[in-house]
Amino acid sequence: MSRDLYPSRQGNQSAIIDRVDPVVYAGGSGPLSAEEIAFFDQNGYLFLPCFFSPEETKAFQGEMRQIRDSLHGSTRDDVIVEPGTQEVRSVFQVHQSGDTLKRLSQDDRIVDRIRQLLASDVYIHQSRVNYKPGFKGKEFNWHSDFETWHVEDGVPRMRMISCSVALTENNEFNGPLMVSPGSQRHYVCCVGDTPQDHFRQSLAAQELGVPDPDALRWLVDRYGLIQAKGAAGSVLLFDCNVMHGSNGNISPFPRSNVFFVYNSVENIPQEPFSGHSPRPEFLGSRDFTSVAGGGGHH
Amino acid sequence: MSRDLYPSRQGNQSAIIDRVDPVVYAGGSGPLSAEEIAFFDQNGYLFLPCFFSPEETKAFQGEMRQIRDSLHGSTRDDVIVEPGTQEVRSVFQVHQSGDTLKRLSQDDRIVDRIRQLLASDVYIHQSRVNYKPGFKGKEFNWHSDFETWHVEDGVPRMRMISCSVALTENNEFNGPLMVSPGSQRHYVCCVGDTPQDHFRQSLAAQELGVPDPDALRWLVDRYGLIQAKGAAGSVLLFDCNVMHGSNGNISPFPRSNVFFVYNSVENIPQEPFSGHSPRPEFLGSRDFTSVAGGGGHH
Repeated sequence: MSRDLYPSRQGNQSAIIDRVDPVVYAGGSGPLSAEEIAFFDQNGYLFLPCFFSPEETKAFQGEMRQIRDSLHGSTRDDVIVEPGTQEVRSVFQVHQSGDTLKRLSQDDRIVDRIRQLLASDVYIHQSRVNYKPGFKGKEFNWHSDFETWHVEDGVPRMRMISCSVALTENNEFNGPLMVSPGSQRHYVCCVGDTPQDHFRQSLAAQELGVPDPDALRWLVDRYGLIQAKGAAGSVLLFDCNVMHGSNGNISPFPRSNVFFVYNSVENIPQEPFSGHSPRPEFLGSRDFTSVAGGGGHH
Repeated sequence: MSRDLYPSRQGNQSAIIDRVDPVVYAGGSGPLSAEEIAFFDQNGYLFLPCFFSPEETKAFQGEMRQIRDSLHGSTRDDVIVEPGTQEVRSVFQVHQSGDTLKRLSQDDRIVDRIRQLLASDVYIHQSRVNYKPGFKGKEFNWHSDFETWHVEDGVPRMRMISCSVALTENNEFNGPLMVSPGSQRHYVCCVGDTPQDHFRQSLAAQELGVPDPDALRWLVDRYGLIQAKGAAGSVLLFDCNVMHGSNGNISPFPRSNVFFVYNSVENIPQEPFSGHSPRPEFLGSRDFTSVAGGGGHH
């Protein structure tokens, strides 16, 4: 196990340290413009409105609904229900549940952009659909995804990007993702100690790996907040370490997004830095096979 | 007791019925323009950005903080704490807690506008500060204020207006008020039966007097939603029956507003339509003394 460059949950001490990894890796090539790359580097995200056509989006939505309906009342580990209401909150490993989302996870229009930013081949570390139902949708607390993937899955470095595809409109009423643009350049070492099998509670309501209020205030004072809003079919690429969260949703509009997390094949997980055994395959894949396609990105 | 024109919580039947009262009463005069009056009539609200000067607003904020700090850990009935965190959520009767907010509740710039819209003298039915703290602020569920004031306080007709003064910025991140503009023309008869002393739970998390999802969807399909956003010192006037609510707040920005509820002196409460005894004075005043000033509004 290499030295832990990003220690977290190692006691009662919160701290903010500098990121040592690049946000955009040098040497990639692909469809993103220099302006788009510079924007991602500075802000840790890139929003691509109406990226997929209405017909394509309709197919994604159909499969999303099919998956949800087939899982009603499921007690499978990879199906997370809302605390209190038992409604489906998240379903994992959706790139293996259906043909349409599987194809989407390998779509060159997405993967070429990820490979360009990370300057390497990538594999899928995790995928999921988040359903935030109307009326009762609960918040997702502030977090850096990388903090969990590092501590609980053993991913050593920041060389991962998430792609979120909007399956419904994300608007100001239904709890859109809030991002602190620029926060990806800092790493918040969180307080606490990770229990074994922490994922069983953290996926329903995250409490560990959440920055303390002072750290979050420091980031937001410095970088502010934006909301990722747009029509169904829009795409959000975001860095693994950018600070984000979302409010609850009492509006009648459900908010649903599918996420694919791409990790560089040069950044394979080690033993988790928590000291526990790795999380299950559906949360942190140990199949490091590159997504097909690409080439010429080095 | 007169006939109940707006029955609610009388069984398992939800219904949407027409409002029989005007939104704007004929014959008033005052500082609002014809356009502003027409806007209020149609939309059930009127937003007046930066209505109070920064100096005035600072004085309101100072007293708001003083009140909150003096009530830390209070178990008084008129101090409502957040379920779970015990943080102060609402404080009632603030127009009697301090000189500044008392003067504000009687400020001619507000009250002249209310008298103009209701074409009568008014008294204060209720006042409160809502504190929606950063990080942990909970949602306020959808409701018509009038539904509660009718069922639990015995207010017979819709001739009341609330004035909300922003004590912090209300922005897209901190759970601003959402209003369905036009919904004030319909009355949602809610299901359920009101228990005695219902206010003890409803003020912390409202469950009764909340429209069922189909009724809310019907309103929002028809009228949409807006968010009341603006700087501290902005004023929102809103009809007693307009459907509104707000999401929780995980942002670091607290959201705080002071509310004064003005009722026409020609609309004095009767026995509550729930059949129970009236709620305490701090929720529904039985002092019907007109706010001073005005005249010439008939």
